[in-house]
Amino acid sequence: MSVIQTNVEAASEKYSSGFTKGHLALPPARKYLVLTCMDARIDPASAFGIELGDAHVIRNAGASAVDALRSIIISEQLLGTEEIVLVKHTGCGMLTFNNEDAYGLVGKNLGPDAEAELKSQNLDFLPFPDLEEAVRKDVDFLKSTKLVPESVTLSGWVYEVETGKTRRVV
Amino acid sequence: MSVIQTNVEAASEKYSSGFTKGHLALPPARKYLVLTCMDARIDPASAFGIELGDAHVIRNAGASAVDALRSIIISEQLLGTEEIVLVKHTGCGMLTFNNEDAYGLVGKNLGPDAEAELKSQNLDFLPFPDLEEAVRKDVDFLKSTKLVPESVTLSGWVYEVETGKTRRVV
Repeated sequence: MSVIQTNVEAASEKYSSGFTKGHLALPPARKYLVLTCMDARIDPASAFGIELGDAHVIRNAGASAVDALRSIIISEQLLGTEEIVLVKHTGCGMLTFNNEDAYGLVGKNLGPDAEAELKSQNLDFLPFPDLEEAVRKDVDFLKSTKLVPESVTLSGWVYEVETGKTRRVV
Repeated sequence: MSVIQTNVEAASEKYSSGFTKGHLALPPARKYLVLTCMDARIDPASAFGIELGDAHVIRNAGASAVDALRSIIISEQLLGTEEIVLVKHTGCGMLTFNNEDAYGLVGKNLGPDAEAELKSQNLDFLPFPDLEEAVRKDVDFLKSTKLVPESVTLSGWVYEVETGKTRRVV
């Protein structure tokens, strides 16, 4: 067992010993989803006020709505989600590189076979050069795709890793 | 403002007023990532013992490693992640439907244009019929792709939404 794995087991022992929420239903009780970044400095439950069982939480590199589309459709079509809260954040890693950099790094660190696998998938890392513009673009994407009905309420936010504050952009 | 949006603002006011973690660095301090499901009944920080700043947290429908590959590569190649903890869970929505069901629902609820958009993307919803087998398959996928180097430590787990317990599968 790695140190991390031992830590998961210890946390689970503690968490489950005081657990009282085994009755919660599968669909989110408050019919919304939060889409945010995988960044280690974000605790969505505390920072955005999500009670256990209330909302789906989708997280990926950069809080990309394009990348999250599969999960969003499942949330809304199969599990009743009626509102999407999209939160990107200051100091995001996605502001620091472009696809060319990432492809180069993979080739350098993992070798030509890995780079070929990446190219065969035509993988877009979806970095962005401007934070608030990226929030607006992702909300526009959700507005424009026919896979998210107009009845779904949308908003876009920025979380500040320096202050712990979340402010609305759109 | 929707009720949910007002709730985000209130939570942010409270959270930021006691915030003391503005100094944390971008790369996860403990160099690991947790990949789990978007399910509303999972609070990764508490259930898996993740301290703020320590780990990337990726969440999507079903905790799919295939779907998360873009984020995983960024985490490991640009931000130093050396270990992946993959956690699927009991009662997962992904056990309850298949691609045909989902395509049918989209066509019925959102109309032929939406179904055409879905088909043009050839979107795979990545459902699975067996929970523990799905954990093993995803860990095998991470082992087999050249985009995750062999030096990355992998483990696969099941979180029980009924008990709050997390148990190791592989």
